[in-house]
Order: sequence, then structure tokens, then C-alpha cells
Amino acid sequence: MEISQVVGTLYCTRRVAGLEHCPLRLLQDSKGKLVVATDPVGARGGNWVFTVSGSAGRLAMGDKRILTDLTIGGIIDHWDGGATAPTAPEAASPKTDTA
Amino acid sequence: MEISQVVGTLYCTRRVAGLEHCPLRLLQDSKGKLVVATDPVGARGGNWVFTVSGSAGRLAMGDKRILTDLTIGGIIDHWDGGATAPTAPEAASPKTDTA
Amino acid sequence: MEISQVVGTLYCTRRVAGLEHCPLRLLQDSKGKLVVATDPVGARGGNWVFTVSGSAGRLAMGDKRILTDLTIGGIIDHWDGGATAPTAPEAASPKTDTA
Amino acid sequence: MEISQVVGTLYCTRRVAGLEHCPLRLLQDSKGKLVVATDPVGARGGNWVFTVSGSAGRLAMGDKRILTDLTIGGIIDHWDGGATAPTAPEAASPKTDTA
Amino acid sequence: MEISQVVGTLYCTRRVAGLEHCPLRLLQDSKGKLVVATDPVGARGGNWVFTVSGSAGRLAMGDKRILTDLTIGGIIDHWDGGATAPTAPEAASPKTDTA
Repeated sequence: MEISQVVGTLYCTRRVAGLEHCPLRLLQDSKGKLVVATDPVGARGGNWVFTVSGSAGRLAMGDKRILTDLTIGGIIDHWDGGATAPTAPEAASPKTDTA
Repeated sequence: MEISQVVGTLYCTRRVAGLEHCPLRLLQDSKGKLVVATDPVGARGGNWVFTVSGSAGRLAMGDKRILTDLTIGGIIDHWDGGATAPTAPEAASPKTDTA
Repeated sequence: MEISQVVGTLYCTRRVAGLEHCPLRLLQDSKGKLVVATDPVGARGGNWVFTVSGSAGRLAMGDKRILTDLTIGGIIDHWDGGATAPTAPEAASPKTDTA
Repeated sequence: MEISQVVGTLYCTRRVAGLEHCPLRLLQDSKGKLVVATDPVGARGGNWVFTVSGSAGRLAMGDKRILTDLTIGGIIDHWDGGATAPTAPEAASPKTDTA
Repeated sequence: MEISQVVGTLYCTRRVAGLEHCPLRLLQDSKGKLVVATDPVGARGGNWVFTVSGSAGRLAMGDKRILTDLTIGGIIDHWDGGATAPTAPEAASPKTDTA
């Protein structure tokens, strides 16, 4: 699973049947790349989230007919870097508690 | 799901059975790389689209016998960057509304 | 699906059961990287092809017991860049018709 | 499967149903990138682990309802580089025995 | 499928149930990155091999309960670069016959 930040919403009038009624969130991953994800948790712009890809992402929507390959799996409150704190990519740093 | 632009069509006389009657669209992704996708939404050259990969992409064709690993999921009208507008890759910028 | 060029054949005496009787083609992708694919269309050295990955690639062999993750999906005759011709990676340029 | 180091834990109040009761471990891969994995083996901060991705990673949790795409497959004690010792990425070097 | 070289063996006392009795081979891919694969063909250190990923790799083990995402598919004897010999990545060059 990957860490990304929600940066906006995608508007698409013409879509495949399996994605007709899904809000599509625009995310920016740790390298600055924009990706598109479905959102079953109600994330807002600016939220740090983790994403689930592949068939797990599809199942995470709770409806197999939704044909996504990337789903927001949860909103990150914070993380605990522990004793061996990572040199976190700048883009991936919500609130880090270094114990 | 990824953001790409439609840049052309691929012509292939000899193909596997599972892709015989599918128009194959040539897309350019945000890094400038060319990829090939099936197209159930009727995108045209120049359109910005998002793509669905893997088994979700195959199911999005509405016919399991179509053996694609990348399908155009929808045509992008525009996106809303919100308060925390991304530093969008240049290649990935149709119409961006920054509220 | 990705665009590659056939550059040779791989010889392997010892293989897993699911790949025993498959010619294995050596391909070079757009970044110059060598990859290995099964070939149900009879591509020859020098041909430009597109490849199908994952379970779609396995199904494209027409025999589920063939345990490949990359299959040649078709031989590219040429492509039509259209009005918005791509800045094609040099490695990926068979015959391009710019209308 | 990939080699990573456990660097912390992710705290997420709001999650999809399929990941509600799973500790989410923060890992750093060989390129320094942070990724998130479920953990059925009880790894601790600082441990070197290998990860299993995709549907194999989901099945490795022992409960299909857990919707992960990356699972810790085991804790690395050490590895044997053999006669042809690799030029190991610095980030990926727990205890290496070069015979 | 990808080309890699076997560079060692991974020792892990604590593992998930689906990988308990599998030797885990350490491979170096064409970019020098270390990856971990299961081995149904008995490859030895120094051997050049090709690997099968995803569900095909799992099925290639001949036992669905083995939860790998990367399996050695065969040991490379040599390859035939043909008339259009590739500019092979240095790391990926066992014995190349250029006819």
C-alpha cells in the first residue's frame, strides 16, 4: 500500500459503466505523480491517505461491480517512526511522532 | 488509475484472438511514455483520459473475452485542484480549476 | 499494454512445467530493458509488437496451463499519430503516419 | 518479493472495512520509499523483512477478507551472498555472510 | 518475465504459513536491485534465470498454497540476439550468440 495526499477531484462525464457513480479523487504520490482513486472513506482535499491497488482495491469498495484498480484504504492520522526514524520523503510527512 | 492523453491509433493485422476486433488506442502517460489501451468510451485524439489496469481493466470492457490489461475508464472534462493545488506534471494538465 | 521490439530467443533447458513447450522471445522495451514473453502470434526478430501482462497475458495464450506473465498480443504494422503526434521514444518507432 | 525495513506504525482512525483490525506497518524499501504493509509475523521496528504483493499477499494474511496488497512474508535473519556476492543496495543489508 | 541472476539464499526463521518450507533465493535484476523468489527448478548461485511474477508465479510452484509473487521460471542456457542484437544491459548477459 502506498502513501498519497488528496489534491482534488476529477470530473468525467463519459465513463465506463463500472465507474459511473463513483467520486474519483485526484491523489499525489510521494514522487509528485498524480493518480486517480476511488474513495470509500470520504477523504477531503489535503488529507494524507494510504491506497490499496489491484483486486484488493476493487474489493475494498464493498461492491465488486466497481471497476477500480486503486482505492483509498484509510485516512492517516499520524505515524510513529520509532527508534529508527525513516528519512521520510518530504511529500509523505503528515504528523510524525518520533518516540 | 493513471492520467494519459490519447495520441493515436495502433494498426495490427496479426493479433491474439482476444483482441481481434478492438480498436487499440495509443496513449502517452505523464512521463511521455507510449502505452496501448482498449477503449470502451470512444475517446478521440487529444482527449485526456484516465486508465484502469489489470483485471479491472479487462472487466471494464464489458466482455471477459477481451484480453486487455489497460482500458480507458473515462474522458476527463476537468479537475478541481482544491485549496492544495498539486504541482501537476506538465503532461497531465487538461483544464484545472483552482477554487 | 506496452510497445516492444523482438530482439531474439531465449534458450532454457530447465524450466517449470507450465512453460515447457513455449518459445520464449526476448524483447526490448522502450527504455532498452530486456524482457521475456511468450508468443502466440509468430513474431520474428525485428518486429515491433505490443505485449499483454498479468492474467490477461496468460489467457491470451489460449491455454490456461501456460504460466506466463507477459504475452505478445499482436505485431504492429504502423500507427497513426493523428493531429497531436507524440514525441515518441526513439526506441518505439516502427512506421508512424502523421496525418 | 521485495526486501524492506520496518520503520514504524501507521495510525488511521477511518479505514475501509477490510482493514479495520490490522496493524499497519510502515516499511522503507531499498530506494528509501515508504510503503505500508499488513503484518502476520509480528515484525518490530528495525527488522529487515521480505514482502509479498498482490493476491498472494492477501492470502498470506490467512483471512481473505483482509484487503491488503502488501504483506510481510517473513523476518530476515541473514542471507548468504555466496561466491558471487551482490553489490547490495546499502539500504538492503542486514547481516550478509559472504562464504 | 524478467531476467535476473541468482546471488544467494535468504534465511528467515519466522515466516507466513504459505512460505514455510520454500527455499528463498536472492536474485539481482538488471538494475542491480535485490529481489526474492521461490525456486522450483533448482537454480544455483551465479545462474542466470527468468522470473515469473503474480498469480502465474504462484501457479508455477505447482502448489497453490505456496504464497509467492515471484518464481524462477527457468535457467537460461544462452540467448540468440539475432540480426538485430540488443544493446543488452551489462548485468543481463550470460552467453549471447549473435548469428
